[in-house]
Amino acid sequence: MKRKIIPDIVQDQKICELTPHSTVYEAAQQMVDCDVAAVIILDESGKLLGIATERDMTRRVLAQNLDPKTVKLNAIMTTNPDTLSPDDNAAEALELMRTRHYRHLPVARKGKVIGMVSIRDLYAAVHSELEENIRETEAFVFGDRYSV
Amino acid sequence: MKRKIIPDIVQDQKICELTPHSTVYEAAQQMVDCDVAAVIILDESGKLLGIATERDMTRRVLAQNLDPKTVKLNAIMTTNPDTLSPDDNAAEALELMRTRHYRHLPVARKGKVIGMVSIRDLYAAVHSELEENIRETEAFVFGDRYSV
Repeated sequence: MKRKIIPDIVQDQKICELTPHSTVYEAAQQMVDCDVAAVIILDESGKLLGIATERDMTRRVLAQNLDPKTVKLNAIMTTNPDTLSPDDNAAEALELMRTRHYRHLPVARKGKVIGMVSIRDLYAAVHSELEENIRETEAFVFGDRYSV
Repeated sequence: MKRKIIPDIVQDQKICELTPHSTVYEAAQQMVDCDVAAVIILDESGKLLGIATERDMTRRVLAQNLDPKTVKLNAIMTTNPDTLSPDDNAAEALELMRTRHYRHLPVARKGKVIGMVSIRDLYAAVHSELEENIRETEAFVFGDRYSV
Protein backbone atom coordinates (compact mmCIF):
# COMPACT_ATOMS: atom_id res chain seq x y z
CA MET A 1 0.00 0.00 0.00
CA LYS A 2 1.30 3.45 -0.85
CA ARG A 3 2.25 5.53 2.19
CA LYS A 4 0.90 9.07 2.34
CA ILE A 5 2.64 11.93 4.10
CA ILE A 6 -0.32 12.24 6.46
CA PRO A 7 -1.21 10.06 8.36
CA ASP A 8 1.52 7.52 7.58
CA ILE A 9 4.57 9.67 8.20
CA VAL A 10 3.53 12.84 10.03
CA GLN A 11 1.04 12.83 12.92
CA ASP A 12 0.62 15.19 15.86
CA GLN A 13 4.01 16.68 15.14
CA LYS A 14 5.70 19.43 17.11
CA ILE A 15 6.73 22.09 14.57
CA CYS A 16 9.49 24.56 15.22
CA GLU A 17 8.22 27.96 13.98
CA LEU A 18 10.09 31.25 14.01
CA THR A 19 9.83 34.68 12.42
CA PRO A 20 12.23 36.23 9.86
CA HIS A 21 13.46 38.52 12.65
CA SER A 22 14.31 35.68 15.03
CA THR A 23 18.07 35.24 15.46
CA VAL A 24 20.17 32.25 14.50
CA TYR A 25 20.85 31.75 18.21
CA GLU A 26 17.11 31.52 18.95
CA ALA A 27 16.67 29.08 16.06
CA ALA A 28 19.53 26.86 17.28
CA GLN A 29 17.95 26.73 20.74
CA GLN A 30 14.55 25.85 19.26
CA MET A 31 16.15 23.07 17.23
CA VAL A 32 17.44 21.56 20.46
CA ASP A 33 14.05 22.00 22.22
CA CYS A 34 12.05 20.48 19.34
CA ASP A 35 14.78 17.95 18.45
CA VAL A 36 14.68 18.86 14.76
CA ALA A 37 17.28 19.71 12.13
CA ALA A 38 15.27 22.45 10.42
CA VAL A 39 12.95 25.29 11.44
CA ILE A 40 10.28 26.99 9.41
CA ILE A 41 9.91 30.74 9.21
CA LEU A 42 6.41 32.29 9.07
CA ASP A 43 5.10 35.83 8.63
CA GLU A 44 2.59 37.35 11.08
CA SER A 45 -0.36 35.79 9.27
CA GLY A 46 1.20 32.35 9.48
CA LYS A 47 2.26 32.24 5.81
CA LEU A 48 5.36 30.18 5.07
CA LEU A 49 8.33 32.39 4.17
CA GLY A 50 11.30 30.05 4.44
CA ILE A 51 13.17 27.17 5.98
CA ALA A 52 16.51 27.18 7.81
CA THR A 53 18.53 24.04 8.49
CA GLU A 54 21.57 22.98 10.51
CA ARG A 55 23.44 23.15 7.19
CA ASP A 56 22.47 26.80 6.61
CA MET A 57 23.55 27.67 10.14
CA THR A 58 26.88 25.86 9.85
CA ARG A 59 27.74 27.25 6.43
CA ARG A 60 26.23 30.72 6.55
CA VAL A 61 26.98 31.64 10.16
CA LEU A 62 29.73 29.49 11.72
CA ALA A 63 31.89 29.24 8.60
CA GLN A 64 31.56 33.01 8.04
CA ASN A 65 32.36 33.80 11.68
CA LEU A 66 29.14 35.79 12.05
CA ASP A 67 27.48 36.48 15.41
CA PRO A 68 24.48 34.13 15.91
CA LYS A 69 22.88 36.63 18.31
CA THR A 70 22.73 39.36 15.67
CA VAL A 71 22.21 37.43 12.40
CA LYS A 72 18.47 37.13 11.65
CA LEU A 73 16.91 34.14 9.96
CA ASN A 74 15.86 36.24 6.94
CA ALA A 75 19.59 36.52 6.12
CA ILE A 76 20.23 32.78 5.96
CA MET A 77 16.89 31.07 5.24
CA THR A 78 15.94 29.44 1.97
CA THR A 79 12.92 31.45 0.80
CA ASN A 80 9.74 30.01 -0.71
CA PRO A 81 10.71 26.38 -0.15
CA ASP A 82 8.93 23.58 -1.98
CA THR A 83 6.26 21.98 0.20
CA LEU A 84 4.56 18.62 0.30
CA SER A 85 0.83 18.10 0.53
CA PRO A 86 -0.66 15.76 3.17
CA ASP A 87 -1.86 13.46 0.37
CA ASP A 88 1.48 13.19 -1.44
CA ASN A 89 2.90 9.71 -1.44
CA ALA A 90 6.15 8.98 0.35
CA ALA A 91 7.99 7.47 -2.62
CA GLU A 92 7.42 10.53 -4.83
CA ALA A 93 8.35 12.86 -1.99
CA LEU A 94 11.57 10.93 -1.42
CA GLU A 95 12.38 11.07 -5.13
CA LEU A 96 11.86 14.86 -5.05
CA MET A 97 14.27 15.11 -2.11
CA ARG A 98 16.84 12.87 -3.78
CA THR A 99 16.85 14.74 -7.09
CA ARG A 100 16.75 18.25 -5.62
CA HIS A 101 19.13 17.50 -2.74
CA TYR A 102 16.71 18.42 0.02
CA ARG A 103 16.92 16.79 3.43
CA HIS A 104 13.78 18.39 4.90
CA LEU A 105 10.50 19.64 3.43
CA PRO A 106 7.53 21.36 5.10
CA VAL A 107 4.09 19.81 4.72
CA ALA A 108 1.38 22.41 4.03
CA ARG A 109 -2.40 22.32 3.71
CA LYS A 110 -4.02 25.40 2.10
CA GLY A 111 -0.90 27.49 2.72
CA LYS A 112 -0.59 26.56 6.41
CA VAL A 113 2.36 24.46 7.52
CA ILE A 114 1.20 21.41 9.44
CA GLY A 115 4.37 19.36 9.58
CA MET A 116 7.91 18.73 8.46
CA VAL A 117 9.39 15.56 7.04
CA SER A 118 13.01 14.50 6.73
CA ILE A 119 14.63 12.23 4.18
CA ARG A 120 15.05 9.75 7.05
CA ASP A 121 11.28 9.68 7.79
CA LEU A 122 10.50 9.16 4.12
CA TYR A 123 13.14 6.51 3.63
CA ALA A 124 11.75 4.45 6.52
CA ALA A 125 8.26 4.56 4.98
CA VAL A 126 9.40 3.80 1.44
CA HIS A 127 11.65 0.98 2.59
CA SER A 128 8.76 -0.79 4.32
CA GLU A 129 6.57 -0.13 1.24
CA LEU A 130 9.16 -1.70 -1.09
CA GLU A 131 9.63 -4.67 1.22
CA GLU A 132 5.88 -5.19 1.25
CA ASN A 133 5.85 -5.08 -2.57
CA ILE A 134 8.57 -7.71 -2.70
CA ARG A 135 6.72 -9.95 -0.22
CA GLU A 136 3.49 -9.64 -2.21
CA THR A 137 5.23 -10.36 -5.50
CA GLU A 138 7.02 -13.36 -4.00
CA ALA A 139 3.78 -14.64 -2.47
CA PHE A 140 2.28 -14.41 -5.96
CA VAL A 141 5.22 -16.29 -7.48
CA PHE A 142 5.27 -19.09 -4.97
CA GLY A 143 1.51 -19.16 -4.58
CA ASP A 144 1.31 -19.59 -8.33
CA ARG A 145 3.92 -22.33 -8.56
CA TYR A 146 3.33 -24.30 -5.42
CA SER A 147 -0.41 -23.99 -4.80
CA VAL A 148 -2.26 -27.26 -4.12
CA MET B 1 23.12 -7.59 -6.72
CA LYS B 2 24.06 -6.40 -3.26
CA ARG B 3 25.83 -3.03 -3.22
CA LYS B 4 29.05 -2.81 -1.20
CA ILE B 5 30.30 0.37 0.46
CA ILE B 6 33.39 0.26 -1.76
CA PRO B 7 33.31 0.46 -4.77
CA ASP B 8 29.55 0.91 -5.20
CA ILE B 9 29.04 3.91 -2.93
CA VAL B 10 32.40 5.46 -2.08
CA GLN B 11 35.13 5.97 -4.65
CA ASP B 12 37.96 8.49 -4.84
CA GLN B 13 36.27 10.54 -2.15
CA LYS B 14 37.57 13.80 -0.72
CA ILE B 15 37.62 13.36 3.06
CA CYS B 16 37.51 16.27 5.46
CA GLU B 17 40.08 15.52 8.18
CA LEU B 18 40.88 17.66 11.20
CA THR B 19 42.66 17.30 14.55
CA PRO B 20 41.06 17.40 18.02
CA HIS B 21 42.64 20.83 18.47
CA SER B 22 41.12 22.30 15.30
CA THR B 23 38.41 24.85 16.06
CA VAL B 24 34.73 24.65 15.22
CA TYR B 25 35.28 27.63 12.91
CA GLU B 26 37.97 25.74 10.98
CA ALA B 27 35.70 22.68 10.77
CA ALA B 28 32.77 24.74 9.46
CA GLN B 29 35.01 26.21 6.75
CA GLN B 30 36.28 22.74 5.79
CA MET B 31 32.68 21.52 5.54
CA VAL B 32 32.00 24.23 2.99
CA ASP B 33 35.23 23.48 1.07
CA CYS B 34 34.64 19.71 0.97
CA ASP B 35 30.85 20.08 0.63
CA VAL B 36 30.18 17.60 3.44
CA ALA B 37 27.99 17.59 6.54
CA ALA B 38 30.49 15.85 8.82
CA VAL B 39 34.23 15.92 9.43
CA ILE B 40 36.43 13.23 10.92
CA ILE B 41 38.96 13.91 13.63
CA LEU B 42 42.29 12.03 13.58
CA ASP B 43 45.27 11.89 15.95
CA GLU B 44 48.84 12.51 14.69
CA SER B 45 49.24 8.89 13.60
CA GLY B 46 46.05 9.05 11.53
CA LYS B 47 43.96 7.04 14.02
CA LEU B 48 40.25 7.89 14.05
CA LEU B 49 39.29 9.73 17.23
CA GLY B 50 35.87 11.14 16.45
CA ILE B 51 33.31 12.64 14.10
CA ALA B 52 31.67 16.07 14.23
CA THR B 53 28.56 16.96 12.25
CA GLU B 54 26.53 20.04 11.38
CA ARG B 55 24.16 18.88 14.12
CA ASP B 56 26.91 18.86 16.77
CA MET B 57 27.98 22.33 15.70
CA THR B 58 24.44 23.72 15.75
CA ARG B 59 23.50 22.19 19.09
CA ARG B 60 26.78 22.30 21.00
CA VAL B 61 28.13 25.64 19.79
CA LEU B 62 25.43 27.90 18.27
CA ALA B 63 22.67 26.94 20.73
CA GLN B 64 25.07 27.38 23.66
CA ASN B 65 26.32 30.74 22.36
CA LEU B 66 29.93 29.54 22.42
CA ASP B 67 32.70 31.12 20.34
CA PRO B 68 33.45 28.92 17.29
CA LYS B 69 36.98 30.36 17.11
CA THR B 70 37.87 29.10 20.59
CA VAL B 71 35.85 25.87 20.95
CA LYS B 72 37.96 22.89 19.84
CA LEU B 73 36.56 19.83 18.10
CA ASN B 74 37.52 17.58 21.05
CA ALA B 75 34.85 19.42 23.07
CA ILE B 76 31.99 18.65 20.67
CA MET B 77 32.96 15.55 18.68
CA THR B 78 31.42 12.13 19.11
CA THR B 79 34.34 9.95 20.18
CA ASN B 80 35.06 6.44 18.89
CA PRO B 81 32.30 6.43 16.29
CA ASP B 82 31.11 3.21 14.69
CA THR B 83 32.73 2.64 11.32
CA LEU B 84 31.82 0.71 8.22
CA SER B 85 34.15 -1.63 6.39
CA PRO B 86 34.65 -1.33 2.61
CA ASP B 87 33.04 -4.76 2.17
CA ASP B 88 29.89 -4.02 4.22
CA ASN B 89 26.73 -4.09 2.18
CA ALA B 90 24.67 -0.95 1.74
CA ALA B 91 21.39 -2.37 3.07
CA GLU B 92 22.92 -3.47 6.37
CA ALA B 93 24.77 -0.17 6.73
CA LEU B 94 21.53 1.74 6.12
CA GLU B 95 19.74 -0.39 8.71
CA LEU B 96 22.50 0.39 11.22
CA MET B 97 22.06 4.11 10.53
CA ARG B 98 18.28 3.90 10.83
CA THR B 99 18.27 2.04 14.13
CA ARG B 100 21.07 4.05 15.77
CA HIS B 101 20.00 7.42 14.36
CA TYR B 102 23.24 8.13 12.53
CA ARG B 103 23.28 10.24 9.42
CA HIS B 104 26.97 9.78 8.59
CA LEU B 105 29.50 7.01 9.21
CA PRO B 106 33.21 6.83 8.42
CA VAL B 107 34.48 3.93 6.30
CA ALA B 108 37.73 2.45 7.64
CA ARG B 109 40.17 -0.20 6.43
CA LYS B 110 42.65 -1.52 9.04
CA GLY B 111 42.05 1.47 11.30
CA LYS B 112 42.55 4.08 8.54
CA VAL B 113 39.61 6.17 7.40
CA ILE B 114 39.19 5.95 3.64
CA GLY B 115 35.76 7.49 3.21
CA MET B 116 32.52 8.76 4.68
CA VAL B 117 28.99 7.77 3.73
CA SER B 118 25.71 9.54 4.42
CA ILE B 119 22.26 8.08 4.85
CA ARG B 120 21.43 9.72 1.51
CA ASP B 121 24.25 7.87 -0.31
CA LEU B 122 23.16 4.57 1.20
CA TYR B 123 19.49 5.15 0.49
CA ALA B 124 20.20 5.80 -3.20
CA ALA B 125 22.12 2.51 -3.46
CA VAL B 126 19.57 0.47 -1.52
CA HIS B 127 16.66 1.94 -3.47
CA SER B 128 18.18 0.89 -6.79
CA GLU B 129 18.98 -2.53 -5.29
CA LEU B 130 15.36 -3.02 -4.16
CA GLU B 131 14.03 -1.85 -7.53
CA GLU B 132 16.32 -4.33 -9.26
CA ASN B 133 15.00 -7.11 -6.97
CA ILE B 134 11.43 -6.19 -7.85
CA ARG B 135 12.21 -6.13 -11.58
CA GLU B 136 13.91 -9.54 -11.38
CA THR B 137 11.05 -11.04 -9.39
CA GLU B 138 8.49 -9.61 -11.81
CA ALA B 139 10.47 -10.87 -14.79
CA PHE B 140 10.37 -14.30 -13.16
CA VAL B 141 6.61 -14.04 -12.59
CA PHE B 142 5.73 -12.91 -16.09
CA GLY B 143 8.42 -15.04 -17.71
CA ASP B 144 6.86 -17.99 -15.94
CA ARG B 145 3.28 -17.18 -16.86
CA TYR B 146 3.61 -15.80 -20.38
CA SER B 147 6.55 -17.66 -21.85
CA VAL B 148 6.01 -19.20 -25.28
